[in-house]
Amino acid sequence: MRANRVRELWAKRRPVINGWCGIPSAFCAELMAHMGWDSLVVDMQHGIVDYQMMVGMLQAISTTETAPLVRVPWNDPAQIMKALDAGAYGVICPMVNSRAECERFVGACRYAPLGYRSSGPMRAALYGGPDYHEKANETILAFAMIETVEAVRNLDEILSTPGLDAVYVGPSDLSITMGLPPGQDKTEPAMLANLEKVVEACRRHHVKAGVHTGSTAYAKRMIGMGFDFTTVLGDARLLAIAGQQALREMRAEAPAPAATPGGTY
Amino acid sequence: MRANRVRELWAKRRPVINGWCGIPSAFCAELMAHMGWDSLVVDMQHGIVDYQMMVGMLQAISTTETAPLVRVPWNDPAQIMKALDAGAYGVICPMVNSRAECERFVGACRYAPLGYRSSGPMRAALYGGPDYHEKANETILAFAMIETVEAVRNLDEILSTPGLDAVYVGPSDLSITMGLPPGQDKTEPAMLANLEKVVEACRRHHVKAGVHTGSTAYAKRMIGMGFDFTTVLGDARLLAIAGQQALREMRAEAPAPAATPGGTY
Amino acid sequence: MRANRVRELWAKRRPVINGWCGIPSAFCAELMAHMGWDSLVVDMQHGIVDYQMMVGMLQAISTTETAPLVRVPWNDPAQIMKALDAGAYGVICPMVNSRAECERFVGACRYAPLGYRSSGPMRAALYGGPDYHEKANETILAFAMIETVEAVRNLDEILSTPGLDAVYVGPSDLSITMGLPPGQDKTEPAMLANLEKVVEACRRHHVKAGVHTGSTAYAKRMIGMGFDFTTVLGDARLLAIAGQQALREMRAEAPAPAATPGGTY
Amino acid sequence: MRANRVRELWAKRRPVINGWCGIPSAFCAELMAHMGWDSLVVDMQHGIVDYQMMVGMLQAISTTETAPLVRVPWNDPAQIMKALDAGAYGVICPMVNSRAECERFVGACRYAPLGYRSSGPMRAALYGGPDYHEKANETILAFAMIETVEAVRNLDEILSTPGLDAVYVGPSDLSITMGLPPGQDKTEPAMLANLEKVVEACRRHHVKAGVHTGSTAYAKRMIGMGFDFTTVLGDARLLAIAGQQALREMRAEAPAPAATPGGTY
Amino acid sequence: MRANRVRELWAKRRPVINGWCGIPSAFCAELMAHMGWDSLVVDMQHGIVDYQMMVGMLQAISTTETAPLVRVPWNDPAQIMKALDAGAYGVICPMVNSRAECERFVGACRYAPLGYRSSGPMRAALYGGPDYHEKANETILAFAMIETVEAVRNLDEILSTPGLDAVYVGPSDLSITMGLPPGQDKTEPAMLANLEKVVEACRRHHVKAGVHTGSTAYAKRMIGMGFDFTTVLGDARLLAIAGQQALREMRAEAPAPAATPGGTY
Amino acid sequence: MRANRVRELWAKRRPVINGWCGIPSAFCAELMAHMGWDSLVVDMQHGIVDYQMMVGMLQAISTTETAPLVRVPWNDPAQIMKALDAGAYGVICPMVNSRAECERFVGACRYAPLGYRSSGPMRAALYGGPDYHEKANETILAFAMIETVEAVRNLDEILSTPGLDAVYVGPSDLSITMGLPPGQDKTEPAMLANLEKVVEACRRHHVKAGVHTGSTAYAKRMIGMGFDFTTVLGDARLLAIAGQQALREMRAEAPAPAATPGGTY
Repeated sequence: MRANRVRELWAKRRPVINGWCGIPSAFCAELMAHMGWDSLVVDMQHGIVDYQMMVGMLQAISTTETAPLVRVPWNDPAQIMKALDAGAYGVICPMVNSRAECERFVGACRYAPLGYRSSGPMRAALYGGPDYHEKANETILAFAMIETVEAVRNLDEILSTPGLDAVYVGPSDLSITMGLPPGQDKTEPAMLANLEKVVEACRRHHVKAGVHTGSTAYAKRMIGMGFDFTTVLGDARLLAIAGQQALREMRAEAPAPAATPGGTY
Repeated sequence: MRANRVRELWAKRRPVINGWCGIPSAFCAELMAHMGWDSLVVDMQHGIVDYQMMVGMLQAISTTETAPLVRVPWNDPAQIMKALDAGAYGVICPMVNSRAECERFVGACRYAPLGYRSSGPMRAALYGGPDYHEKANETILAFAMIETVEAVRNLDEILSTPGLDAVYVGPSDLSITMGLPPGQDKTEPAMLANLEKVVEACRRHHVKAGVHTGSTAYAKRMIGMGFDFTTVLGDARLLAIAGQQALREMRAEAPAPAATPGGTY
Repeated sequence: MRANRVRELWAKRRPVINGWCGIPSAFCAELMAHMGWDSLVVDMQHGIVDYQMMVGMLQAISTTETAPLVRVPWNDPAQIMKALDAGAYGVICPMVNSRAECERFVGACRYAPLGYRSSGPMRAALYGGPDYHEKANETILAFAMIETVEAVRNLDEILSTPGLDAVYVGPSDLSITMGLPPGQDKTEPAMLANLEKVVEACRRHHVKAGVHTGSTAYAKRMIGMGFDFTTVLGDARLLAIAGQQALREMRAEAPAPAATPGGTY
Repeated sequence: MRANRVRELWAKRRPVINGWCGIPSAFCAELMAHMGWDSLVVDMQHGIVDYQMMVGMLQAISTTETAPLVRVPWNDPAQIMKALDAGAYGVICPMVNSRAECERFVGACRYAPLGYRSSGPMRAALYGGPDYHEKANETILAFAMIETVEAVRNLDEILSTPGLDAVYVGPSDLSITMGLPPGQDKTEPAMLANLEKVVEACRRHHVKAGVHTGSTAYAKRMIGMGFDFTTVLGDARLLAIAGQQALREMRAEAPAPAATPGGTY
Repeated sequence: MRANRVRELWAKRRPVINGWCGIPSAFCAELMAHMGWDSLVVDMQHGIVDYQMMVGMLQAISTTETAPLVRVPWNDPAQIMKALDAGAYGVICPMVNSRAECERFVGACRYAPLGYRSSGPMRAALYGGPDYHEKANETILAFAMIETVEAVRNLDEILSTPGLDAVYVGPSDLSITMGLPPGQDKTEPAMLANLEKVVEACRRHHVKAGVHTGSTAYAKRMIGMGFDFTTVLGDARLLAIAGQQALREMRAEAPAPAATPGGTY
Repeated sequence: MRANRVRELWAKRRPVINGWCGIPSAFCAELMAHMGWDSLVVDMQHGIVDYQMMVGMLQAISTTETAPLVRVPWNDPAQIMKALDAGAYGVICPMVNSRAECERFVGACRYAPLGYRSSGPMRAALYGGPDYHEKANETILAFAMIETVEAVRNLDEILSTPGLDAVYVGPSDLSITMGLPPGQDKTEPAMLANLEKVVEACRRHHVKAGVHTGSTAYAKRMIGMGFDFTTVLGDARLLAIAGQQALREMRAEAPAPAATPGGTY
């Protein structure tokens, strides 16, 4: 089975620089993949992406060495299994707030006896290879999103779920449940404390820690804090910022902060 | 944030004349939007519409002042949140039969602390504006469908759910559970009694009342009964009736009643 | 090979009542096909339809006995042949103004030695049957559009083109080139004279005459004048008129004429 | 309502030879339908197929006499009802392991009072006919998948669910939960014993038995064992085997077994 | 008819700041439109865009005040007319090298008696309004591309074509035919001389001058030279540059020039 | 620039074993690509494939080492250039019957000064690499189809066109113009004589010879005759034959010849 580049980098103790695709276009995903991100997440939750579009985007990413990951819309076995059968090498699952939710999620990612994933890797076996079934359980990555205060409270029980590979912090949703406004790159002490708590708990449980950010500066700070996997904005934000900057220059206006209603996208 | 035209009309105590889109085509939705309906529902339940098509239809509706609403296929947070992130200004949720179901539905429409909607309004913030997060909870409409005898029995507990804006009666499904044949524009006393019961309960709970109908005559009757929001057929029925009428005229046949297997579509 | 219903009706000297599909949706085409039109034209010229959509619409029409026809965007062999390979049982070609243009068009519809159509009826042989190649030349219909004063002037040379089955008058474009405003159902004497001229010339050349209309009354008048094939509006207009009528009734306004910028759609 | 060809064959005590569509293409489904399978399953679970694609594939199948069936991705009422409204004449539901799961599934397939299916057969009434609502409950087929050891243990309670028409055995998933490698056409005694157990229990409960196979030889053996409905591979496997065979012949290599990671697809 | 924002700006003697869409995605076009470009070109030539995608992108642009323009793939009346019927408020036509080619192009953009455009503005009349036919000839913009040395040689005969509104210089193709490497923002004296020659000739013929550029600095320089319409990169390049920049920062590498094989995209 | 595998094989004097994709599905193309064909042609002429579908299919093929080729629908520069910009590494052009037609075709495949291809390799530069413009003229393959008696008569003038790399014989269309029935694998002496004539003329002009066949036996015979590039059936035929064979086995019928109306698909 084709190796999972994310696991390879982690094996070398290197942080993964992840890109993010929310624009519904296989060509746009291919453009992103050719930039050289270590991995790319096709975002089926907040991205404008559904199943058929996701498949095309995974095909486009598969033209490169970038590892293809998918964020599913919800903790739903049907969607998780369809993403995996389509060739995702890892799944990020939103709103995992308890051990039961985490088990439901991880189980959907694993064939028996480790889980209850149904067998039928139609595109996955093309991408991964003919020994897909045999090696999928150890190759595919399961990321649980930590994005509520409830999840932070339940970190230990979540992180000790057998088969969980990593968590992914959604700072915007976490902010809301902490009573803060949504958005990225938060520096409130309470938020930073939560981020450190996640990293520390991940270390204890031998689980990798990932986080969504809104700038390269903050992403580097997060790597410094111990995160193993960071995302810097997504395609839509990158394009919006670049286009607005070009327009401002043409109209000779002073730079203004981009409108950022928050969220991991 | 762009105002919600449905709320504006209700603030003026005017009934909303709603159109209905079940044909899977952004062009057809744009054609409907240019007719001048106050609002248009993209029907993901019985319409031939899934997520990616729904997004195109919302874009088409957004070329006009018509308010874009979505009926989701089921009481499923993933679908509700994706419809909202795509720019729906209201969600109609099928088969809400109890307080628990209503809370699950309304919670998915609201950001914390009022609910558990995840933040990431990718298209919604384009349509609504940069202050989307701040004002979404008070702008977006949540409609629970009342379409079973069980729901009618549980009206008070459903209508008192915090954050519920309106109900939408599906007369065809309600008929079936009452032991009547499916269809629109029912005049059986038991059905009329149920419709009046809904209107009366809505008034008590300060919740708006909506209903699906099959003719302008019945829709006007429903407005007279106190309904605040009425739909007259959908695009597929309007076209089927118009085309069959043209064919009959060409073939000089007498008018015959259209085949109507019922349902809100 | 499956028979062409249009030819069958003509063999019985019955006028063909044709429907028109410009809304890009296979479901909408299927809805139209189930109404019972003798034939349906998928309009790739002014309809919002391209090749891939047209294929889906032909598949939808093929679920019924209605004969599937296509109006191509232009007199272009690539598009004509692709429409035929996709299973169109007739092609309407816009703007045929001379004998040379008509020969180019008809040749694209026929296999050698009658024309230069390339062999490869991928879907056509599924729809038509395994003897498709053998019988296609005598089954498929070629309709040349007469829609300029130049075409009317050149009627005899156009109509005498070997292999031409029928003409289709586009009254809106013909009006423009006559110096009249665009639109359907014209009653100016000059227009009626041209329509009669077409019918008369068709009779002399044993070619069938078709025409686009905007009402059943005018379509019946055209049949009375001798036309063998009439279209009454298209799906988009039927829906627009029906929807606007419903809205007017809901708002108690008096009926107003629909905005009709003309054109065959 | 149009008859269900699967029921007709069963009424004549003839086994149903079923085809399987996992390639996301309405044209490919039409090609399959013209081969003459008794029924065709559009596979939304392991096939690369979502809702909008499934609708196009059902339309394509509806151009022939082949009965259109759908395997849904999961036991989810939204997906089951949408497949039925789109015109599926039967639904195969994965991973039905208990009586409660079976009741949830069968209820979604039936209108009240037999179930809780919502009324709105938009395409189904085009395909089935105007009396769709009246006859749907007795025409539509509900197949529960038996594909875990737990389901085999619970056979009697599953098979006695009112309204269940048939089961469908997924040998690959069943193998995994039995501790065997995935794949088709298993001859291990434990597997054959389970298959016989299913057939025998089906006979007792007057429920039909279906099974997925990987060759015509095994499919015939299953019919001999008493199965009423067999699938021989799917479109993707048929094509992969045929293409690999052609390539081997061109390269003069000896035949090698195809890579088969298993699964019902 | 809705006014053409490009004409309005030109009437105020203000240069038009144009954006460029080559990523095949209506959402991406909507994102671009919300940035505030005066106009946006949907690029059907080098963009990954065909007709059906272009329609969705025009719908998305129509949700804002940005003027929707289309570059067609070639000087082909079928494609030009379909773009206009779909609601383009201007067409950019590649490779116009002679008077005859320019007349063929401009004629396809105008209704008789000014040209030979066929009437049927299906979406255009929704977007433009019910008086579309009456005012289209004076509202729609025709841009001929000047992108070969032959076209520069024939400038006067091209620019004097009745009805031509503007030219659009493609510096990359022009470079190639001048014997230079492809690319944007050329400063070779021969290229600058050609650009000045275009501006000067446009002034004499009362035709507007547009140009494709690769940076805001060069675009401003072109406005200073007298160009009335400038494009700064396209969506794909903006995104590629922004993403590569983010990756470089994450990997702490020094900035490197982006790979630019040239072309107007 | 990424090497062209077809050229590499030819440089080693090895015949190219080509596959053929006419089913409109990126997944189906990916399935074909993983079989290991040296090259794959996406057939936009007789395949059910248009531009947007072709792009997805090229992306799918690009996940493997198979060289991506495209047959365009017609000798039309717009379509040829769009196929190349989308990443085709070779174009097969139908119905090239004269030197002028061949020059028009080859010119569309080459940048100046060798031709008139417009610069803008949006996806091509992702697939080929940043030096695409510099090396495209020597990497991209131009195949002219020889498929009429007229083309055979004009072989020398066609084959001597500067820049032509190869011809591709379409035996079915050639048969028709020779007065034979359409179909593959013809053994009539006149046809074999024409095939030998093509091979011999290609050798003289240092142009490669390709041919479409319907079986591995005939393909090997053609290689023996000197052809450098052979296709064995296409995806649709492979699947149709395999499915019909499975059905016959299930129904215990004797094998019958498949219906083959001919054509290169």
